[in-house]
Amino acid sequence: MPDDLIRRLLHGERVPLARAISAVENEAPDAVAILNACYEKSGRAFRLGVTGPPGAGKSTLVARLAQEYRRRGETVAVVAVDPTSPFTGGALLGDRVRMSDLAGDPGVFIRSMATRGSQGGLAVHTAQACDVLDAAGFSRVLIETVGVGQSELEVAQTADSTCVVLVPESGDGVQAMKAGLMEIGDLFVINKSDREGAERAAFAVRSALELRPPSPDGWTPPVLLTVAPEGKGVSEVVERFEAHFEQLKSHGSLAGRRRRSVEQRMRDLLRAQLWDVFMERVPVRVWEDSVQTLVEHRLSPHEAAERLRRLVGAP
Amino acid sequence: MPDDLIRRLLHGERVPLARAISAVENEAPDAVAILNACYEKSGRAFRLGVTGPPGAGKSTLVARLAQEYRRRGETVAVVAVDPTSPFTGGALLGDRVRMSDLAGDPGVFIRSMATRGSQGGLAVHTAQACDVLDAAGFSRVLIETVGVGQSELEVAQTADSTCVVLVPESGDGVQAMKAGLMEIGDLFVINKSDREGAERAAFAVRSALELRPPSPDGWTPPVLLTVAPEGKGVSEVVERFEAHFEQLKSHGSLAGRRRRSVEQRMRDLLRAQLWDVFMERVPVRVWEDSVQTLVEHRLSPHEAAERLRRLVGAP
Repeated sequence: MPDDLIRRLLHGERVPLARAISAVENEAPDAVAILNACYEKSGRAFRLGVTGPPGAGKSTLVARLAQEYRRRGETVAVVAVDPTSPFTGGALLGDRVRMSDLAGDPGVFIRSMATRGSQGGLAVHTAQACDVLDAAGFSRVLIETVGVGQSELEVAQTADSTCVVLVPESGDGVQAMKAGLMEIGDLFVINKSDREGAERAAFAVRSALELRPPSPDGWTPPVLLTVAPEGKGVSEVVERFEAHFEQLKSHGSLAGRRRRSVEQRMRDLLRAQLWDVFMERVPVRVWEDSVQTLVEHRLSPHEAAERLRRLVGAP
Repeated sequence: MPDDLIRRLLHGERVPLARAISAVENEAPDAVAILNACYEKSGRAFRLGVTGPPGAGKSTLVARLAQEYRRRGETVAVVAVDPTSPFTGGALLGDRVRMSDLAGDPGVFIRSMATRGSQGGLAVHTAQACDVLDAAGFSRVLIETVGVGQSELEVAQTADSTCVVLVPESGDGVQAMKAGLMEIGDLFVINKSDREGAERAAFAVRSALELRPPSPDGWTPPVLLTVAPEGKGVSEVVERFEAHFEQLKSHGSLAGRRRRSVEQRMRDLLRAQLWDVFMERVPVRVWEDSVQTLVEHRLSPHEAAERLRRLVGAP
């Protein structure tokens, strides 16, 4: 069953592809076999992160970028890990982006990832889903993630290149910049730039970028203006993404980025495995007793943790 | 040295208190002894979380809440774990909140927590800092955190009661509500309510709250309007916080919340310890070799992780 599924997804069939990603997301028994097979075949796709604060219009921009890439003959997978994204079903008031232009295109695959789960699980699952899509032959994988909070920044760091999307209002408080976004962007976009203050916001971003140490590969992050619903500026974003990809390859820094990313993945995986093995050895009653000593302040968390490790003979 | 420091901080001395929290934050050798002593004495303070999207005015509200609590005779500690907070030095363009009214008051202690660190480290360190402040005798501990992203929500969950701060504009996209904030709020505040749309935003929040399952302790989250710089509505926020605290105590749900919180802390601590013990057994060269097999796609992350665990004899 996994062998057949793997063979078919590697040929780009959509139903096995969707099933494989679900298996990965649910940590199903087949997932490891699927991932091992896909990892071997992956590494060809360009992985692009699109991140920014809620309300910046990331989903619409991602949809437009996908269309533009299709126009240029690329095949495109979209992975939405943004809890505020309409792709993930997060839209509460029906502001669902019209994706009808993309939905019927066999060269496009859209997938949302659940944002609940174990610590680090989201970044792990996203990277794994990207491996599967990469192995299935998509040449560009777009990862949409909301860019506030540690776990989301981790997701962004699984991408080869990251675009930070802001709005004209972001320039005022430069709030987004404080949240670590300035450090991770390879491209910056002021979306909704038909609103007042777009040029001022771009100026604020450029000024803030001057405080960043120069990139070792000589890349200067461009600051672009877009109006995503009209497609304005979208082609330039694609051009700059591609220029960055070329520069990463020619300067050898793509290898370094991917090395760090995959090292982090192994670390996350090992952490999760060590925990699972430990918990299998702790009887429920022993765990509950330990919690009770904490509740009664008889033992501190450090003391209770040490006692537990001793009880089950963990190192 | 830690004995003397512990004795002095338990008497509420400020310099030992600041040193103790730094030791906790840096995981210094003394930290465990300090934490064990403080945990035993903690559990008396009411821990209040203040969370919300960047730009909602959380820091100013926290400063005003601290003042209001002082007026009511409480002693107040503020723990800022919001990377966008002026308390944490995150302000880029000098929009630092004036804290001069608080700074000279011996009944107030303000502390920022670094947001960098290991996975889960932020929530662990924040809870530990709260224990220290609690043991030092502060009756109210205010935790300011930016409410987007998994790790920040974890921080909020270490509080007894959580106030979600929004702005009138939040009502439009109800963006904040999609990010999980609607689920964790015990109080909701529409700050900057002198701006247009405050009532509409409050209505949107109330509507969204109706979708939430009723609280087992019969608490209905109030939605309040504030203008923090002028102190408008701040007194009512304090009243509602206190009413929630009373309700939590009288319905016994405070014990349940604290139980879940401390259980999560032991879990985080154990995870971190298991990882540290594992990594001590992995020679650097062996780790580097494993990363290299990943980079060359000779082994998948799962295969490389399993090989590593076998090599060092980990379960």
